[in-house]
Amino acid sequence: MLPEPLSRLIEELQRLPGIGPKGAQRLAFFMLKSPREQADRLADAIRELKARVVHCSTCNSITDSDPCVYCRSGERDLRVICVVEEPQNVTTIERTREFKGVYHVLMGALSPLQGIGPDDLKIRGLLTRIHEQQVNEVILATNPNVDGEATAIYLARLLKPLGVRVTRIATGIPVGSDLDYADDVTMHKALEGRREV
Amino acid sequence: MLPEPLSRLIEELQRLPGIGPKGAQRLAFFMLKSPREQADRLADAIRELKARVVHCSTCNSITDSDPCVYCRSGERDLRVICVVEEPQNVTTIERTREFKGVYHVLMGALSPLQGIGPDDLKIRGLLTRIHEQQVNEVILATNPNVDGEATAIYLARLLKPLGVRVTRIATGIPVGSDLDYADDVTMHKALEGRREV
Repeated sequence: MLPEPLSRLIEELQRLPGIGPKGAQRLAFFMLKSPREQADRLADAIRELKARVVHCSTCNSITDSDPCVYCRSGERDLRVICVVEEPQNVTTIERTREFKGVYHVLMGALSPLQGIGPDDLKIRGLLTRIHEQQVNEVILATNPNVDGEATAIYLARLLKPLGVRVTRIATGIPVGSDLDYADDVTMHKALEGRREV
Repeated sequence: MLPEPLSRLIEELQRLPGIGPKGAQRLAFFMLKSPREQADRLADAIRELKARVVHCSTCNSITDSDPCVYCRSGERDLRVICVVEEPQNVTTIERTREFKGVYHVLMGALSPLQGIGPDDLKIRGLLTRIHEQQVNEVILATNPNVDGEATAIYLARLLKPLGVRVTRIATGIPVGSDLDYADDVTMHKALEGRREV
């Protein structure tokens, strides 16, 4: 029989993704052993996150001051918009240090099975940006899975008539990987997307 | 570039056991998406844990009221003490619903490599309990690894001269397992500990 505060923490931890009953118990006992300051810092960080992080009113990416660091930067090319599904995808693309344009976060992907249609995504804001600014190119960087692919196809059909260049990120064998580990569809896409060397 | 509150939470989450940079980011983004009430409940639970959970002054197990539920229960046999390394071990033993005695948590195990000696463990309290109460049996339920085994041997030598019965939990093949998966030492222990049927 665990003390009530401990079992309550274990219960709350189990709501997090990838944390089961054993993992939650392990984390809770670790916190019990760790210094009080460390536990307080974690509790504060969780509260601060919800209190201070908002979505950028232009691109929907997360930020602690609106507009976000990308939208307000004078050094980013506002004419190239990279469209992603979730705020964390922005981080993944930023890590490459390659992209100098701005972002647009859809806050999800089309998914008929889950009942998510175009009206549930932040598409209207994207159209407004294309209309109001001199956008040259929209890069569709939704995930290369069923929902992300459907979203990319939908957006391509919607945006091309507006006269904007619409591109899709490449699918293929990951760098550093081995051909033998590639699944059939990825191998097919890699062949299909081959380029002159 | 992540908003400061988000990167701070990711940093704090990474201090937890078994959570790396990717896992911490995943958890932080999940909390960002989840309702504020849920995040607040988690933050509260962490604070409450540190504020309200203490160690039992008799057996060192964790409790929200001292003495703990086992030490103050009129239904437990105070003459049988089960010695474990950590507070969470008590939960594991309680789950069997077999043990009706009381516990003594050492708060660790002897580990010369990590510089943990007898003075770093809660052994004195155990001796006091044996002296003051009519203890019939001490069950050594430290882990069956190098440190736990060394601790058990040390305690056995210390306690036997006091005239108390000292026992050690059995090692062997886990129930529901397969002989082929047992390591050599476990197989050896299982043979050594064989019993008449």
